Amino acid sequence: MTDQTEAEHAEAMKALQAERRELMRTKTEERGLLIVNTGDGKGKSTAGFGMVARALGWGQRVGIVQYIKGKWITGERQFFRKFPDQVRYEVMGEGFTWDTQDRARDIAAAEAAWATSLEMIADPTLDLVLLDELNIALRYDYLDIHAVVAGLVARPEGKHVCVTGRNAKPELLAVADLVTEMTLVKHPFEQGVKAQRGIDF
Amino acid sequence: MTDQTEAEHAEAMKALQAERRELMRTKTEERGLLIVNTGDGKGKSTAGFGMVARALGWGQRVGIVQYIKGKWITGERQFFRKFPDQVRYEVMGEGFTWDTQDRARDIAAAEAAWATSLEMIADPTLDLVLLDELNIALRYDYLDIHAVVAGLVARPEGKHVCVTGRNAKPELLAVADLVTEMTLVKHPFEQGVKAQRGIDF
Repeated sequence: MTDQTEAEHAEAMKALQAERRELMRTKTEERGLLIVNTGDGKGKSTAGFGMVARALGWGQRVGIVQYIKGKWITGERQFFRKFPDQVRYEVMGEGFTWDTQDRARDIAAAEAAWATSLEMIADPTLDLVLLDELNIALRYDYLDIHAVVAGLVARPEGKHVCVTGRNAKPELLAVADLVTEMTLVKHPFEQGVKAQRGIDF
Repeated sequence: MTDQTEAEHAEAMKALQAERRELMRTKTEERGLLIVNTGDGKGKSTAGFGMVARALGWGQRVGIVQYIKGKWITGERQFFRKFPDQVRYEVMGEGFTWDTQDRARDIAAAEAAWATSLEMIADPTLDLVLLDELNIALRYDYLDIHAVVAGLVARPEGKHVCVTGRNAKPELLAVADLVTEMTLVKHPFEQGVKAQRGIDF
């Protein structure tokens, strides 16, 4: 790259620009997307919250249901709860499942969270609904995957829904528009560093 | 999973809880992390902005340098600029490189952005510095990778720095604490859907 002349660089960039314009020309549709962030790496929920920030920047309204992180005080909750006019924020889970050890209670919590999720998905004043860690509830079969998929597919036109959590089920991936897998390449837990405010929660 | 009895479930969760506690017991260190979000998928910058939201929720202060997205109006910029006391937000790039077609100008813009980045990294009032799309500037050799790595490694103790962008260089990965690769599994561009407010920018 460093050996490229100015003229060669301009030429290469011109080709890239033409390619990009041609690509964008074919992309004309706007519609509500079903977005899934999954994988073992970090950034699944974090990217969900980044999307919330973007949406708020455009004056949109957002619904958030947290399925799992119930007991924790988190930076995201403390932050987004400052915008009650734009954000409906519901923490429905009771903590990680290994903390409750009570399957019946976990199922009841997941069902209540899903009922709230359906309410938000139907709410015409919300542009984006973030269902944080829904995949965990699905993985433990706290919710029926077919009922959840049906509810997501039946969302109103124009409504974006973002589902996060590792181990996304294939039935969900099949109906999603945008799927990203966050893969762990290197993690500081391996080096003895603990979860930290602002970074991990 | 559905065939598991209540007792079996509680037992399995108890084992997971014990495993988790043992893992957490060994994680005692707090320190400023060098975080890299890379890969071809979505969510690299978005997760960076989610981290910013988290940090703000804890009352922390954040610096943001955007290396590439200069000309665009973005949701993230409109949103985070509402918090001038907590966020220093600098848009330094001039748009995607294929829009400028001027290597000398791109290099000058990248160098100015890097100077501002170093200033933020040294600023003791900032807890987190997000260097959005720095990897793009490095990929095109607009900045010297060794100088950048040296600047990142020399950051003050306790300072978190998050670098985003595809094609992260191996020299950067080598000194990072936390690396996530965002992998594209399915993208709506493939289905003719265009970039949308709140989701893509």
